[in-house]
Amino acid sequence: MSSTVESGIEKPRRGGGAAARRMARLNAPVVYPSTTIRNLPTYEILAVDGLEAIDDHALGILENVGIEFRDDASSQIWRRAGAQVDGHRVRMPRELVRSLVATIPDEFDYHARNPERTVRVGGRNMIFGPAYGTPNLIDLDGVRRQATADDMRMLMKLHHVNPAIQYNGGYTLEPMDIPVPHRHLHMVEGSFLATDKPIMGSPQSEFQARDCIEMARLVFGSERMDRDVVMTAIFNCNSPLVWDQTQLDAVRVYASENQALLMSPFVLYGASTPVHSLAATAQIIAEVLAGLAFTQIIRPGCRAVMGVAPMGVYMKSGSPTFGSPEVSLVMYIFGQMARYYGVPWRTNGAKSGAKEDDLYAGYDSILKVYPAILGGCNLLTHCGGTIEGSLCISMGKLAADAQQILGFQTLLTGVSFEDMEAALADLARIGPGGHFFDEDYTRAHMPFLDEVQDNERYETWVAGGSKTVGERGCAWCRSMLERYEEERPPLDEGVRDALREYVVRREVEIPGELV
Amino acid sequence: MSSTVESGIEKPRRGGGAAARRMARLNAPVVYPSTTIRNLPTYEILAVDGLEAIDDHALGILENVGIEFRDDASSQIWRRAGAQVDGHRVRMPRELVRSLVATIPDEFDYHARNPERTVRVGGRNMIFGPAYGTPNLIDLDGVRRQATADDMRMLMKLHHVNPAIQYNGGYTLEPMDIPVPHRHLHMVEGSFLATDKPIMGSPQSEFQARDCIEMARLVFGSERMDRDVVMTAIFNCNSPLVWDQTQLDAVRVYASENQALLMSPFVLYGASTPVHSLAATAQIIAEVLAGLAFTQIIRPGCRAVMGVAPMGVYMKSGSPTFGSPEVSLVMYIFGQMARYYGVPWRTNGAKSGAKEDDLYAGYDSILKVYPAILGGCNLLTHCGGTIEGSLCISMGKLAADAQQILGFQTLLTGVSFEDMEAALADLARIGPGGHFFDEDYTRAHMPFLDEVQDNERYETWVAGGSKTVGERGCAWCRSMLERYEEERPPLDEGVRDALREYVVRREVEIPGELV
Repeated sequence: MSSTVESGIEKPRRGGGAAARRMARLNAPVVYPSTTIRNLPTYEILAVDGLEAIDDHALGILENVGIEFRDDASSQIWRRAGAQVDGHRVRMPRELVRSLVATIPDEFDYHARNPERTVRVGGRNMIFGPAYGTPNLIDLDGVRRQATADDMRMLMKLHHVNPAIQYNGGYTLEPMDIPVPHRHLHMVEGSFLATDKPIMGSPQSEFQARDCIEMARLVFGSERMDRDVVMTAIFNCNSPLVWDQTQLDAVRVYASENQALLMSPFVLYGASTPVHSLAATAQIIAEVLAGLAFTQIIRPGCRAVMGVAPMGVYMKSGSPTFGSPEVSLVMYIFGQMARYYGVPWRTNGAKSGAKEDDLYAGYDSILKVYPAILGGCNLLTHCGGTIEGSLCISMGKLAADAQQILGFQTLLTGVSFEDMEAALADLARIGPGGHFFDEDYTRAHMPFLDEVQDNERYETWVAGGSKTVGERGCAWCRSMLERYEEERPPLDEGVRDALREYVVRREVEIPGELV
Repeated sequence: MSSTVESGIEKPRRGGGAAARRMARLNAPVVYPSTTIRNLPTYEILAVDGLEAIDDHALGILENVGIEFRDDASSQIWRRAGAQVDGHRVRMPRELVRSLVATIPDEFDYHARNPERTVRVGGRNMIFGPAYGTPNLIDLDGVRRQATADDMRMLMKLHHVNPAIQYNGGYTLEPMDIPVPHRHLHMVEGSFLATDKPIMGSPQSEFQARDCIEMARLVFGSERMDRDVVMTAIFNCNSPLVWDQTQLDAVRVYASENQALLMSPFVLYGASTPVHSLAATAQIIAEVLAGLAFTQIIRPGCRAVMGVAPMGVYMKSGSPTFGSPEVSLVMYIFGQMARYYGVPWRTNGAKSGAKEDDLYAGYDSILKVYPAILGGCNLLTHCGGTIEGSLCISMGKLAADAQQILGFQTLLTGVSFEDMEAALADLARIGPGGHFFDEDYTRAHMPFLDEVQDNERYETWVAGGSKTVGERGCAWCRSMLERYEEERPPLDEGVRDALREYVVRREVEIPGELV
């Protein structure tokens, strides 16, 4: 499931001591991950009659309570499509919603500018992507500070060689030193320059969406743009039951340009939903169905993804929490509903409310990722480094999260009866009290190894300087960034110049005020 | 699912400010957990033909390769039961194994000296217990040091009021200041004094097992001992395929006394098993079936549990790892096999190879617990604090792990359509853009709250002194220990004296050499 690229650097001979082994490892080819294929069954909590009940409630909400599309153009589009519209409140007949959602493809290719990095979304395919939109970072020196455009580009490079990550780009960090209305230009240019994995666009307004599309057109050409998904963007419904104008403006652009839309209610369980996992799910499904249906009015058959950005809430302060048990239940059922509708689904991954790379940063991240893995998620964002809700990326955690994602990708390969007889023949030969370290089968099938974790004894760890996870993680990031310099993906010079010219021109045209 | 005990202390009126709220919380009754009932479906990886194949391979290993019972008495017991015995190597006909395992009860009560604390093991019932056997701790002042008998007793008290923990006792910490041959005496006496939850016995040798049984007899009386499970002990098979004499000596004692035996291969995946998840599972099942069958020769119908203590291995140093993806797969299938045989199953929980309360301590612990939860485990040991493999308990992590276990217990309550109409009626009334904080339903059904996690914003956290998880966790432990003093469970004075006399007498009789 992985393709490799030769680095072109001569490898030292094996067995030449620790320094040679280190060199060999540094110079081993970068592994570029292709789509992960899920060979594990999905975890199903509700039987089909339960799913039908959720569907019925969700459609009932849209039919009777309605949902607000807070944008005149969008609500008028709904009116013309046959919904009952009162101001911005849209009540939509269930058969209308059903027929619109039915035109969404169940799978699609997510194209990279390098065809070898194109991945697939939907069905048994799963892809993993970086965190984005985060304004602060704990940098490679362990210092917490505001993120810059250089940091954003550094992360794009890192994720190009990060073996856990299958698509790249988006605001890997928020470039706080660039005026808000210009950021998307640098984000898209930076993505195309840094990586030849698939990239993301900005969802923040109509003009930003158009800029992203135009820049992608410079790379892919108009014909491919109209046919292929070369860009995705995430659109958040404000739960409960509000789609806002800025998002809808951008939705119309991406949908009409046939790019993939990740329609994702932004949910604080218990604050923006009832404290009832099934009622909350029905509400979220209503919100996402309304968004999905809207994309299909704009362009029938355009690719769209059922998304959700789920959080719990700390009732004392209203702060978000991550990995709460109630939200995990919602996620598993959300995944079942996505399969019920035959639409790919997306959520976000290794997030935490922790302020440091501590115990809770670890708890939260795994608790968030697990329902995506067993729940059959197709596209997982935020696979690396997020702490403080979504307000900071820790570089140390980013490295460690990458290892955890690789571990989950191993889990997804599942089990097989192939080779079982051979493995048991080894057991029969070795017999009681032996060990398997020296077996050929063991050497050929080494178990998953986390490259950041310290697995030595306490005394050995102390003797080695009691290195923290942050220190180990940052060392991994530095070594990967060194690797990047050897593996920088080529980009046609004409395309590079065209992107630069576009950014320069638009920076003049768009009033740039730091807000 | 929880019973409560009134503390008898007057509660302050509600709404009297922060200090009053803090008092109210400190004085709220301790919640004593009863058995957790799993209302979530189990996660099934293999279909029934896959389970039959594992069973066939496991029985094939016992029939053809055989397994060593490294003890003359035990191997002779096997010979008389109909196995082919060559030295200590025992090859057992599959029908013999099947017929023996078939007499194991599928569920049983695990009795506490306080009947209100009795719990149930097997079927949809799940119970959680403390870590044990750990020689070091990071104490309430954050200092790492060797554990003492006082520390062991402190943990027994803490777990008495720990709402995540349903049974108590065992070597909650290894009392390093007591001679090895005397430790079990202090462990059992300490357990009965500190707690009226169900307790554990020592599995380490025949005389230690007999002492544990005799001390339990002083509390429960002979008649109940012969009828009821009042004690469990964990016995490790040394993978691959070895049951050692000291363990077997103790197995014979507990089985003949009709107490529950947790038969648990101690597995380093890839070192003591093939690097093949299904072959490894077949081997482990062979080992555990041989152990279970042996208990039923000793006393047909005695309660026994399919256990496993699974670890990965860091191939460079041989150190154990926790939560590896391959081992997770083994755990899910192990759970399926337990249901296939109709025997309750046990594994261990929140373990980590981390040296601190760091990111990996969090990752590992959740990755270890998750397969137990979704895999339908019935008895989970090590629910709190374990780091450094099993060589240290962090008090801060113990508190945080307790919160995570409570979160998993909430997850296990699953979903329900009850109240759904009411919850959705709130949504209809609130409508687009509202919130649910002030709803009666929200107030009456507050989501799970972690008492150790910091959920404030970064700036608030800094202003509050940037408290680490360790500091917050230790504060929780201290407050629970204060609570313990108000809630100390009564013990009949005669029983207390009899236990003390037993310990004093045996300390004279047993040569006590610190080893």
